[in-house]
Amino acid sequence: MKIDVLTLFPKMFTALNESVIGKAQEKGLLEFSTHDFRNYAQNKQHHVDDYPYGGGAGMLLQVEPIDLCLEEVVDKEKKPRVILLDPSGVPFNQALAEDFAKEEQLIFICGHYEGYDERIRDLVTDEVSLGDYVLTGGELGAMVMIDATVRLLPNVLGNQESAKTDSHSTGLLEHPQYTRPAEYKGKKVPAVLMSGNHEKIRQWKVKESLRRTYLRRPDMLEKYSLNEEEAEFLAQIKEEVE
Amino acid sequence: MKIDVLTLFPKMFTALNESVIGKAQEKGLLEFSTHDFRNYAQNKQHHVDDYPYGGGAGMLLQVEPIDLCLEEVVDKEKKPRVILLDPSGVPFNQALAEDFAKEEQLIFICGHYEGYDERIRDLVTDEVSLGDYVLTGGELGAMVMIDATVRLLPNVLGNQESAKTDSHSTGLLEHPQYTRPAEYKGKKVPAVLMSGNHEKIRQWKVKESLRRTYLRRPDMLEKYSLNEEEAEFLAQIKEEVE
Repeated sequence: MKIDVLTLFPKMFTALNESVIGKAQEKGLLEFSTHDFRNYAQNKQHHVDDYPYGGGAGMLLQVEPIDLCLEEVVDKEKKPRVILLDPSGVPFNQALAEDFAKEEQLIFICGHYEGYDERIRDLVTDEVSLGDYVLTGGELGAMVMIDATVRLLPNVLGNQESAKTDSHSTGLLEHPQYTRPAEYKGKKVPAVLMSGNHEKIRQWKVKESLRRTYLRRPDMLEKYSLNEEEAEFLAQIKEEVE
Repeated sequence: MKIDVLTLFPKMFTALNESVIGKAQEKGLLEFSTHDFRNYAQNKQHHVDDYPYGGGAGMLLQVEPIDLCLEEVVDKEKKPRVILLDPSGVPFNQALAEDFAKEEQLIFICGHYEGYDERIRDLVTDEVSLGDYVLTGGELGAMVMIDATVRLLPNVLGNQESAKTDSHSTGLLEHPQYTRPAEYKGKKVPAVLMSGNHEKIRQWKVKESLRRTYLRRPDMLEKYSLNEEEAEFLAQIKEEVE
């Protein structure tokens, strides 16, 4: 996969080297580049932002430097997804990360300042928001989306099993988990997990995953189709909670 | 404000220096530190993770190093919020950022590997998720939450006006915005924005903000209470869309 990022703050992306991105690059699974679109400004001062027409606070990114930079970065054979990071975009989620992971090239455009000239939206295939909150720029959002996407590429994570059982991959939250010590300041690991009885452990995990989702994220349960065993466990949980 | 981060990857946080965090520190408005909790491991190999009881993929963070590190980092007088980054937490949003911005100390705990020993949850005040997607670690999530929070602190952003009119601060998405040039590759700025008629421009902004929210995020409109003018504009938009 090829990932290109248009940003005024390319140094921020060195943070990704510590993460899965560094590993994916080492393994030759990812080609990652940043592009400072200030270099495409067609004025002496290299400014890429200007005041909004009709007044208003803050500065807006201009369309021209982004357009010129994209012209060089887009690999037409790869038909890239061009993703604008913006709070008014579609909220990012795991399904979108899985879609992105199937592409040959992803291009992220990171805004800064108050916002974008509207005509920048005509240059992209996707407008995506990280969540319902406001950030100073698109860089952190792009890093999050890149991390969520690249970890799904084949052979990037050491343990393939691991990517599949995570919360939000199965549609349920993960059950409580415990590691050593067996007791810490009086708090013990549940006995069933130390029992060696594989079937009982499996059932406990299924039930506690349901319980956590039911208590914390009932909205996720509504979208989930329960099998027979899960339906019975959920009925038990509802009784236990009352 | 004091912000402390417990992480195995402290270098990642240098990315924040390029952002609002750097400015807030320069202005003396923020004291920011990272703490590598591997230094609190009580074994020769300095490992902080171990296999899950009852089997399963991946490794879990152990409770002891986190507990010992927190003991040093918590400033009891400041009664800090201790925030665990976890996909099974409460989804992060703008209201939570505003809550965080009122605190004297925030402590973020960033996980890695497969997950946390359940007893780590007993040490925190908040479990927060960045969104419904899976990341390789909590670091990027913590950076996002820190950015969203710190930009709300008084005197951090240059332009106070700007923080208030952003999407998700008003409850509506922002209207389209335009800056120079007035025409780019045949695409023109809407005439009203160049008219100099302030009242017409104000009305256009209100209406287009409603239109974008109605078309893209009807869920946000449901939670928003319209004034008389907005209600009339929305009725017009619904007619225009049909």
